[in-house]
Amino acid sequence: MTNIAILGFGVVGGGVADLITNNSYQVARLGGDDIRIKYILDLRDFPDSPFADRVVHDFDIILSDNEVDCVIEAMGGSHPAYEYTVAALKAGKSVITSNKEVVARFGDEFLALARENGVCYRFEAAVGGGIPVISPMISCVGQNKIREVRGILNGTTNYILTKMFSFGASFEESLKDAQDKGYAERNPDADVLGIDACRKIAILTALVSGELLPTDRIHTEGITSIRKEDVLNAAKVGLSIKLLGRCVIGDKGMQVMVAPFMLGSDSPLSSVSGVYNAVEIIGEPIGNVMFYGQGAGAGATASAVVGDLMQIMRSGRSYAEPVWTRGTDGICNFADFEARQYIAICGADRGAVEKVFGSAQVISEGEETAFITGIISEKTAQEGIKSLERLGATVKSRIRLI
Amino acid sequence: MTNIAILGFGVVGGGVADLITNNSYQVARLGGDDIRIKYILDLRDFPDSPFADRVVHDFDIILSDNEVDCVIEAMGGSHPAYEYTVAALKAGKSVITSNKEVVARFGDEFLALARENGVCYRFEAAVGGGIPVISPMISCVGQNKIREVRGILNGTTNYILTKMFSFGASFEESLKDAQDKGYAERNPDADVLGIDACRKIAILTALVSGELLPTDRIHTEGITSIRKEDVLNAAKVGLSIKLLGRCVIGDKGMQVMVAPFMLGSDSPLSSVSGVYNAVEIIGEPIGNVMFYGQGAGAGATASAVVGDLMQIMRSGRSYAEPVWTRGTDGICNFADFEARQYIAICGADRGAVEKVFGSAQVISEGEETAFITGIISEKTAQEGIKSLERLGATVKSRIRLI
Repeated sequence: MTNIAILGFGVVGGGVADLITNNSYQVARLGGDDIRIKYILDLRDFPDSPFADRVVHDFDIILSDNEVDCVIEAMGGSHPAYEYTVAALKAGKSVITSNKEVVARFGDEFLALARENGVCYRFEAAVGGGIPVISPMISCVGQNKIREVRGILNGTTNYILTKMFSFGASFEESLKDAQDKGYAERNPDADVLGIDACRKIAILTALVSGELLPTDRIHTEGITSIRKEDVLNAAKVGLSIKLLGRCVIGDKGMQVMVAPFMLGSDSPLSSVSGVYNAVEIIGEPIGNVMFYGQGAGAGATASAVVGDLMQIMRSGRSYAEPVWTRGTDGICNFADFEARQYIAICGADRGAVEKVFGSAQVISEGEETAFITGIISEKTAQEGIKSLERLGATVKSRIRLI
Repeated sequence: MTNIAILGFGVVGGGVADLITNNSYQVARLGGDDIRIKYILDLRDFPDSPFADRVVHDFDIILSDNEVDCVIEAMGGSHPAYEYTVAALKAGKSVITSNKEVVARFGDEFLALARENGVCYRFEAAVGGGIPVISPMISCVGQNKIREVRGILNGTTNYILTKMFSFGASFEESLKDAQDKGYAERNPDADVLGIDACRKIAILTALVSGELLPTDRIHTEGITSIRKEDVLNAAKVGLSIKLLGRCVIGDKGMQVMVAPFMLGSDSPLSSVSGVYNAVEIIGEPIGNVMFYGQGAGAGATASAVVGDLMQIMRSGRSYAEPVWTRGTDGICNFADFEARQYIAICGADRGAVEKVFGSAQVISEGEETAFITGIISEKTAQEGIKSLERLGATVKSRIRLI
């Protein structure tokens, strides 16, 4: 019998309890043991829940119970998730989380504590919801030289962008629709400003490099400045726009970022629509592989959490455990990042564009001039924009291409 | 030091030797030990290869060397791969293969022998080439109730179908192009008749059900009868055609098949083009997840083989090992399989179609009448076709929808 405690009885915690109960046959067979949900920690009571008798309000009950083998942290936020995780690991209990915020902030510390205490810290659900991403990255692709990990890491923004492309809707209209459907929060900042995706690319970067970057060192842009006109211009040349987290590994180091990118239909990420997530890994000799699925929701997230639990029950620490150090040694200056750039301006014409950027591909003329440059660095792009401004232009939009 | 022997120094065996040599740092770190390629078994000599000194011609040298921990079978075909695998497992050596033929024929026996001898039998490369499919299916999604596993399991046929859709080319023209580019064999039967995909869906079915079906009990159709006209008709209603392996699990049992299917752009499989492969898993509560990548080639296949080796070196048998039994208990009669059906006929018109199939969606009229039925069983479809033939029709094509 493996005894677990679930911290937080919200969407994820409830989903985990339901999955363990509903699919108990598969779970016991795969884990090699029966699972008992011994405690559920929450501030609230749930008198009508079938799990009502497991609900406790004091974490110390869980911490001091030596029967509890594994704690599932499904609370979200940094505190008290951080303190509870540290205490559980020190008490010799494995911890599984769906909370990308604590993994991105403290993952190095948790992994070290797990190592010291001979237990496991797992977080498959923290990136890509139900999609197996972290486990395959650790156990199936690590023998490759990884050149890039990139992904559609946030379902809310992908839903909004899909809506803008399908219906020519504005960002504001599409956001409202996402909120009405429950895909976006009333305060959508964490999604639309790229904060959520930034945490996830920080985790993926740590997995491939061993270095956990502070999220404020990751260049992060959201999708709030993408306009209907940009969508039309992109569609005109067969491109779509996706908010991507990218960790690009070159000879000089890593470029890590979250930003909208225009991409062609030859990229498998371009056809990932709606609330779906996908992570693409490019390496040698594997080529490119992509993992696709539901990036959020009770069921998908619970599947990832319980998958982690099965692995711990079967293999414990014999499974490869990542070692992370906090730092910024591996990252390069973002000013050197090179890409083709889509730029839309008004107040200056094709002549000005060609004067500054040479043979740019002009894709729209009229009230605005929209064009795509060759491959240039961020520094060159910014200098070019300043030159255009000196020639009387106002920059309306800039989006990189992939 | 982990000593390995590679059986067969062709594309896959050579790729494995190269990967272990070129990425030795990652491989040693992930496997927790250095790897030595002690022997390479081949009929030929390779005097110019850096591995020339490891080449042996007698399997008994490998079998009797107690230092050899793991044998990588990259020979292909059933014999002597079968005999060598049995002997290696009985000698207490783990075996890794990229050979879908032996896994589909003898996988149950190999897994049992591995169990009895306390070693591992692994075959990630046998389905989807480099794509992590089998490992995530075992270790990440098994806690779900799996409703279906389906995939584009053969790159050659997907290349041919992509070519037919992109250029309106015929099957014959597209096959010739695939042969010219080295994507298809001179004798393409194993690919275009669905034999290769059939072996792979047999393996995937065993993974989700525990039952290894004889391949002759899997309904298997290839792509040789798909015509330009069918491609045009499909495109007209926004559908593509993909050769899919499917294992559909219903309340009464499984329907397992390989056949071309028409599918809409809402299916993530529809955008998998060229030689790429993808496997989609649909389960509860995970929803649908898809794994995408290169289904063949030296590098991708080697990545999967070496990934298996890393897992064995780290975890050995503590990892979940499948148990398969050979049988047909789980499969249903294919006559009961239900789907919408695309049918193209000549010699009879819309009136005849409506008389037989009721309110079918007619998508083309003229020399041929092409239409799509509602959801009907195979039995009903075949009876309907007989009725149409009695009304003077000749059936030119029939393709199911998904």
